[in-house]
Amino acid sequence: MSEHLHRLRVRYAETDQMGVVHHAAYVPWLEEARIAWLRAHGHSYRELEAGGIAMPVVALELRYRRPLRFDDEVTVAVDARAEGPSRIVFPARILRGDELCAEASVMVATVDRTARPVRIPPALAALLGRDG
Amino acid sequence: MSEHLHRLRVRYAETDQMGVVHHAAYVPWLEEARIAWLRAHGHSYRELEAGGIAMPVVALELRYRRPLRFDDEVTVAVDARAEGPSRIVFPARILRGDELCAEASVMVATVDRTARPVRIPPALAALLGRDG
Amino acid sequence: MSEHLHRLRVRYAETDQMGVVHHAAYVPWLEEARIAWLRAHGHSYRELEAGGIAMPVVALELRYRRPLRFDDEVTVAVDARAEGPSRIVFPARILRGDELCAEASVMVATVDRTARPVRIPPALAALLGRDG
Amino acid sequence: MSEHLHRLRVRYAETDQMGVVHHAAYVPWLEEARIAWLRAHGHSYRELEAGGIAMPVVALELRYRRPLRFDDEVTVAVDARAEGPSRIVFPARILRGDELCAEASVMVATVDRTARPVRIPPALAALLGRDG
Repeated sequence: MSEHLHRLRVRYAETDQMGVVHHAAYVPWLEEARIAWLRAHGHSYRELEAGGIAMPVVALELRYRRPLRFDDEVTVAVDARAEGPSRIVFPARILRGDELCAEASVMVATVDRTARPVRIPPALAALLGRDG
Repeated sequence: MSEHLHRLRVRYAETDQMGVVHHAAYVPWLEEARIAWLRAHGHSYRELEAGGIAMPVVALELRYRRPLRFDDEVTVAVDARAEGPSRIVFPARILRGDELCAEASVMVATVDRTARPVRIPPALAALLGRDG
Repeated sequence: MSEHLHRLRVRYAETDQMGVVHHAAYVPWLEEARIAWLRAHGHSYRELEAGGIAMPVVALELRYRRPLRFDDEVTVAVDARAEGPSRIVFPARILRGDELCAEASVMVATVDRTARPVRIPPALAALLGRDG
Repeated sequence: MSEHLHRLRVRYAETDQMGVVHHAAYVPWLEEARIAWLRAHGHSYRELEAGGIAMPVVALELRYRRPLRFDDEVTVAVDARAEGPSRIVFPARILRGDELCAEASVMVATVDRTARPVRIPPALAALLGRDG
């Protein structure tokens, strides 16, 4: 299992006038958690980009189960798997304690500086295992 | 057909260091377009909320086809349909001219002040037609 | 007088749990208004950047007078003046109808691709007049 | 001295196409640091609001000295002082290691549920000392 637990605290700026976290605020959390997953597994996204590999998001799914609130301590439990030679899927659960508050799946492509798809770098592909 | 075309121009703040629009920036656009759809069809979301009906997002899907850039003039072509008695789905296409750049689907629930599901208000339900 | 009136409508995502616009949301509005000022005076910020001139913000001041709310129609009345050979100040008032809701001043530097200060391009400098 | 050091890591979503952190992204950091200052001194902003005291921002100043970048580890060194009976000023320095990257000052008002100014709560006022 390669799941990584990324923790954060809800910012005031992330709330809206419903008194809960705005649904768009989850999207940067998922990104932060992906980057933390890479770091926890020995990969710096900053260095990947500096080396010419970027990971633009190609698809995003989110299901909101329970509202989150300002100051909540949130855990993003994120994993990763290859989906073909140049795509990675990051499934994630967003939790407050044991309570499942949202579920997500984000697909990124691995591309070069000209935005053309390239194979997932070998050291990273080795971590991701086979796609199913 | 009840599709509404909502126009906007990409803000500089919506870009990221890949030189394109950050994927999270599309989410407030979709919200703005839903609210514009309601207005175009005679409903003020502000008045709905003041009257005790809110529409929190329960699910979100986005597929990114082509990058958008700072200063691009974007059209969000958004439609709406009921999905059961207390949910509305807003499918949307995000276009630059004739070019399809992203596709999305956002599901909201109609809830009261205590966040409990309530039936879609009749005048709005009449617009949305039957769910399939 | 070179003041430009830039109009926008408050996005739901720009509110916070106080039920008003979050104070950070004004900052991208001011940027959008600066870019609209340039466009209204014949300058495309996109083309300036493509030509190697960027305008990073070096200082920002905001005074919040009255809260703004979701769906409000807002006018950003923005002007510009040179402040020395490579700085521009954009003073702005944020209005709802005739009501002054906030005042701001944003200073940008004109820099080249290496982030070094360069003189304001002549056609733009001609518009900005003498600094005081 | 009551200065608090709040640490954060720059999110990818906080960058813009200049390749550095967008100037608006600093504003929620300052807010997060104010709330961390309160927590470090025994006050929960969440509980203050629940008890009927809010702290809307009335003025904001920022000076940007050096650009920050994605993945940078940032320290917001924030302090607080009373400014009259119902205003608090939070001066802050934004640092990367020992390098001063930005300076800020944020003034908030203490208000009740009707947005009317109220005296700073005594336990908090005691911490803030005399205003000058």
